[in-house]
Amino acid sequence: MNSQCVVGIDVGGQTTKIGVVDSMGTVLAQTVIRTDTYTDINPYIAELAEAVNKVIKESGKEGKIRGIGVGAPNGNYYKGTIENAVNLVWGGTQVIEFAKLLSDAMGGIPVALTNDANAAAVGEMTYGAVKGMKNFIMITLGTGVGSGIVVNGEVLYGHDGFAGELGHTCAVRNNGRTCNCGKTGCLETYASATGVARTAREWLELSDEPSLLRNVDKIASKDVYDAAKEGDKLALKIFDYTGTVLGRSFADFIAFSSPEAIVLFGGLARAKEFLLQPMEDAMNANVLPLWKNKVKIVFSQLKESDAAILGASALAWEL
Amino acid sequence: MNSQCVVGIDVGGQTTKIGVVDSMGTVLAQTVIRTDTYTDINPYIAELAEAVNKVIKESGKEGKIRGIGVGAPNGNYYKGTIENAVNLVWGGTQVIEFAKLLSDAMGGIPVALTNDANAAAVGEMTYGAVKGMKNFIMITLGTGVGSGIVVNGEVLYGHDGFAGELGHTCAVRNNGRTCNCGKTGCLETYASATGVARTAREWLELSDEPSLLRNVDKIASKDVYDAAKEGDKLALKIFDYTGTVLGRSFADFIAFSSPEAIVLFGGLARAKEFLLQPMEDAMNANVLPLWKNKVKIVFSQLKESDAAILGASALAWEL
Repeated sequence: MNSQCVVGIDVGGQTTKIGVVDSMGTVLAQTVIRTDTYTDINPYIAELAEAVNKVIKESGKEGKIRGIGVGAPNGNYYKGTIENAVNLVWGGTQVIEFAKLLSDAMGGIPVALTNDANAAAVGEMTYGAVKGMKNFIMITLGTGVGSGIVVNGEVLYGHDGFAGELGHTCAVRNNGRTCNCGKTGCLETYASATGVARTAREWLELSDEPSLLRNVDKIASKDVYDAAKEGDKLALKIFDYTGTVLGRSFADFIAFSSPEAIVLFGGLARAKEFLLQPMEDAMNANVLPLWKNKVKIVFSQLKESDAAILGASALAWEL
Repeated sequence: MNSQCVVGIDVGGQTTKIGVVDSMGTVLAQTVIRTDTYTDINPYIAELAEAVNKVIKESGKEGKIRGIGVGAPNGNYYKGTIENAVNLVWGGTQVIEFAKLLSDAMGGIPVALTNDANAAAVGEMTYGAVKGMKNFIMITLGTGVGSGIVVNGEVLYGHDGFAGELGHTCAVRNNGRTCNCGKTGCLETYASATGVARTAREWLELSDEPSLLRNVDKIASKDVYDAAKEGDKLALKIFDYTGTVLGRSFADFIAFSSPEAIVLFGGLARAKEFLLQPMEDAMNANVLPLWKNKVKIVFSQLKESDAAILGASALAWEL
């Protein structure tokens, strides 16, 4: 029993991370493949299965894999499907029976699947920054904005398994930015890595304020971060705005589930030094007095990518 | 055991409803007192205890009361307190040990207390419009806007017992109306009974559009409803706007907990004929595609005031 292991898989918009995890939560071996090489799901599943088999071999745990846990955007825990995942090139507007496809490709090893942010929340609760905490909200700041809501120590799945789509709550009501989901003004159009890059491009066009960013060809959030590190005023203002938009939304999230903390994870969360203050200020300016200065904003302390792999892998132990 | 009864008390901004309830959920006797006669809690508790004793006597269940359940604004289930209840004249910004005070005044009968909207949610789930439903959000449209969130058949209390303050999520981000809570733009400043009256007064001043409401001295939401019934165009537009504001907010609530239904209750919910269509339109225009036209909006079917009394009474059975 103790010698058994599980596989955790984190499917992101750009890359897919795969790890073999033992019962102590140690990642024994891991690898990464591109998510966006194929627009069709089948060759992606074939490549994924190959990578999983390779990493299992590397870990020396062949024949001892109890199950596979997957965290993916728009993943449905109840059905094992990925549905309408517009941020995945092979996702589109269809329902993909991901758990079944992967299990078949892996010779019948059982596969459980959940939303990527839910998986990260489980990882943080089990091994990370909010170990043992029973009420918190995980916000993943990546290509999009994801969320995993934990209430009384359990992930909130809701009626249909899709609860926790806080990246698609309204941040800007009128004339908001167009979102991949088809709506406008969604939080993720402002507060994701792509949202930060959009803010930069928008603001560069709207003013002639000098900025290091004017020298960058195709601006990504990393460029804005680098410029802010150099003290670039426009870049600093962009993070200030991004943090403010996030903090305002957090205030509304708190009114919903009254969490002890909000946990941030993902590429953009690395800009903690620029985001934390405006986030806290906006959050505390917009919550009910009873929660003012009471809800912690914490950043993931798990090693890069581990939270998602560990969280996804935790699902597999239940199989 | 079966001959035992409980008392359910619903504390509202203006009135307090009291009922004796048997184990089948039948309200055997009930009465109402004013909530807003005294600015101090002590004479209110004395009057409440007197009224409770009177209604117990009326029900013929003296000596058979197992406990008392109370639903109140800003009620805390964990602590039995009412905290910072700005909509109660004796509430203000203090922490009132309501459950203890009432229990003492009632000679030690145990008292449990929760948020009024949570109590209403339990009442609807046990006896009402969503009997047996496991995931729904109760919205109470009264003097303020309250909410009770049910996840997997249980009320969501959150870290500190105050979860579900959806009336204080942001409906209007910039230049929103001042709320009793100290913030601006809260949903309840637009979508409560008082919010509807504010919209009426505001719009009457901003235009010279003819309206029956111009003949009303001190406009209340009931006046707007009566005018709408007469076909008054401005009154109809006011309900259209109110429904739209609510529907937009519902879309964000759905992204949080993915409920099967949103249940409406309270005085303003009686304007169903004018609110339902704009609510549904705005909700479906602002949810993620996966929830479009899938979440029901239902109206409380319990007899006036019974939901809150029954819900509050249900708490007492746990004592």
